Amino acid sequence: MRFNPVITLLTDFGDRDTYVGTMKGVILGIKNDARIVDLCHSVNPQNIVEGAYLLKTAYRHFPPGTVHVVVVDPGVGTDRKAIAFSAGQWLFVGPDNGVFSYVLKNESVGKAVDISGTDHYVGRVGDTFHGRDIFAPAAALIATGAKLENLGPLVTDLVCLDEVEPAVDGDKVTGQVIHIDRFGNCITNIEKSRAWFPVSVYVGGASFSSISHTYADVPEGRLQVLYGSSGHIEVAVRGGSAAEELNIKTGDKVVVHTA
Amino acid sequence: MRFNPVITLLTDFGDRDTYVGTMKGVILGIKNDARIVDLCHSVNPQNIVEGAYLLKTAYRHFPPGTVHVVVVDPGVGTDRKAIAFSAGQWLFVGPDNGVFSYVLKNESVGKAVDISGTDHYVGRVGDTFHGRDIFAPAAALIATGAKLENLGPLVTDLVCLDEVEPAVDGDKVTGQVIHIDRFGNCITNIEKSRAWFPVSVYVGGASFSSISHTYADVPEGRLQVLYGSSGHIEVAVRGGSAAEELNIKTGDKVVVHTA
Amino acid sequence: MRFNPVITLLTDFGDRDTYVGTMKGVILGIKNDARIVDLCHSVNPQNIVEGAYLLKTAYRHFPPGTVHVVVVDPGVGTDRKAIAFSAGQWLFVGPDNGVFSYVLKNESVGKAVDISGTDHYVGRVGDTFHGRDIFAPAAALIATGAKLENLGPLVTDLVCLDEVEPAVDGDKVTGQVIHIDRFGNCITNIEKSRAWFPVSVYVGGASFSSISHTYADVPEGRLQVLYGSSGHIEVAVRGGSAAEELNIKTGDKVVVHTA
Repeated sequence: MRFNPVITLLTDFGDRDTYVGTMKGVILGIKNDARIVDLCHSVNPQNIVEGAYLLKTAYRHFPPGTVHVVVVDPGVGTDRKAIAFSAGQWLFVGPDNGVFSYVLKNESVGKAVDISGTDHYVGRVGDTFHGRDIFAPAAALIATGAKLENLGPLVTDLVCLDEVEPAVDGDKVTGQVIHIDRFGNCITNIEKSRAWFPVSVYVGGASFSSISHTYADVPEGRLQVLYGSSGHIEVAVRGGSAAEELNIKTGDKVVVHTA
Repeated sequence: MRFNPVITLLTDFGDRDTYVGTMKGVILGIKNDARIVDLCHSVNPQNIVEGAYLLKTAYRHFPPGTVHVVVVDPGVGTDRKAIAFSAGQWLFVGPDNGVFSYVLKNESVGKAVDISGTDHYVGRVGDTFHGRDIFAPAAALIATGAKLENLGPLVTDLVCLDEVEPAVDGDKVTGQVIHIDRFGNCITNIEKSRAWFPVSVYVGGASFSSISHTYADVPEGRLQVLYGSSGHIEVAVRGGSAAEELNIKTGDKVVVHTA
Repeated sequence: MRFNPVITLLTDFGDRDTYVGTMKGVILGIKNDARIVDLCHSVNPQNIVEGAYLLKTAYRHFPPGTVHVVVVDPGVGTDRKAIAFSAGQWLFVGPDNGVFSYVLKNESVGKAVDISGTDHYVGRVGDTFHGRDIFAPAAALIATGAKLENLGPLVTDLVCLDEVEPAVDGDKVTGQVIHIDRFGNCITNIEKSRAWFPVSVYVGGASFSSISHTYADVPEGRLQVLYGSSGHIEVAVRGGSAAEELNIKTGDKVVVHTA
């Protein structure tokens, strides 16, 4: 079977515009048999940490060779680099602003290049839409088999943000809410490996002394803390919204005391 | 022409997460040439009847052999079964909680199996994300041509919910609003076949004595009752929102008197 | 390489229903290897000018031969024509209500036909869902290579709306806000070619005397006017929402004085 390369898109473009569709048009013009998958386009505008988290939840579940494109890019138009790199079994394309922090921490990184010159392939680069003019064509070229080193000069020291991990001080772990999902579950930047045996969890004015295994471990309507499907501590209400009940917002502080 | 199998996804996952994208990654890792179509991901959280209705509006319009995956699953983590079955010309994958009620009522059902053991194919099953770990791989395996009976033990007596049909008492038909669309049209669980000659329709405090044929049958701004594109009675306002005007919510009662 | 034809969909159907998914099912039943791309489904309900603008921002970025389907159709059920036509290197399918105005102004138009009879191919036409019963099958047939003239009788004088362009009176250009994007940027119907050297721009109670080149040209939080990625004048706030700050709505007046 001929293998169709997979390209994913993760952006803060929302659904009110043709920005995402236009990127797909550019990709299909270069690599017609690419399979394009939307990861998510509802990252809070310009929230790099949330974009990094959402990428983390998804990228490993794609076939080797998948090209993951991320456009959460408050620095577009500044001198932040546009990059493409390989890490683990996948390839990544986007701005060098920390949105790949979890990938850089968790995977073995291969070659990385500056792709700002990808416009050579597509003519004039728009002042404001690098998703269409740089990231989409670079991803499509990679999907056609182009070698990274042919897309631009090698770069090192990719940006990694401290905020993607909690601060650990003895048995006290201090993190933050980095994403609120559709059900109002509040996901934190505290992973299982950072808090194996939590004694207490404090968030949004509420305190918890045990961790559930599944959403159904508690009665309907009850607040709970559990390890979500991505391995991060989250706060949930069975059949309701923890974000609404505790008035939690992205960025709110979370403290865990461990044994 | 080589035929690309079609897999559809209908969930209550919304658009703020990578849950849907991740399911697609798993599918493409198993069946790379699958054509994946989003039916809808805005089912009200855990509203099984609405999920059942939305599936009904769409499944017949897909080519024979299409695999329809539904994840509206308030019972995830409980002992509800995870199932795959054939019905009519299509295949269906999801929780056995009534979300397939319309399919079971309207189609000839073939084999049905319990797919809870699909984790054998993908390693560890997450505690909370059966969409990714059970339903997506099962759908992809079916799309590769796997026989249902190889995915798990046969099951019978699939769950069918009473709420998907109205109660009929002589010439009085009592149903409910089961879905409100983007335009504010309020769709009921009363089908044409249940109310061929309605004399009056009562919903949201308003009363109607005739059925329109198209949205354009009445002047701009006028409330009307008509048979929608799915054959269910719905309330609409030409150029406006019936849900807002009559303050109708999903679950509201609808009474039809027939001739 | 076998080329997979591309079909795009632009509608005001939103994301709460299966309308878009159902259209894809119909398309894949006729042309299984079509690549279907969502341009946008969040056009304000029945806002033809906004639909025309969103189509303009995207259609040229797709490969030659792409079939662009638009369903923003307040006149469904009336005697407005359903059309398919070629223009530039692309094909277009939708209602003849002005939603193709920018395409008609900017491209060389080839053959145009009335496709109201496309129902011959799919059986009964629903009273209210031409997207599924007429536009989707017509697009799929075109993607299979069907000649336009085989889909229906030739038509001329396609509808073009005045509202897609501003009024020019000497050095005064009067237009309107035709779209507000996810970031709250307010896009007007005034293109660069209509206002090369703006001296002042007035919109939403604010006045501007210079045009920025990129979003990053001004400090965080500052209002600015710039040429957006589509070449239209837009109002933006770096890191914020111009629509919220100036309380701008679609349809608001914009006046530009030029040198």
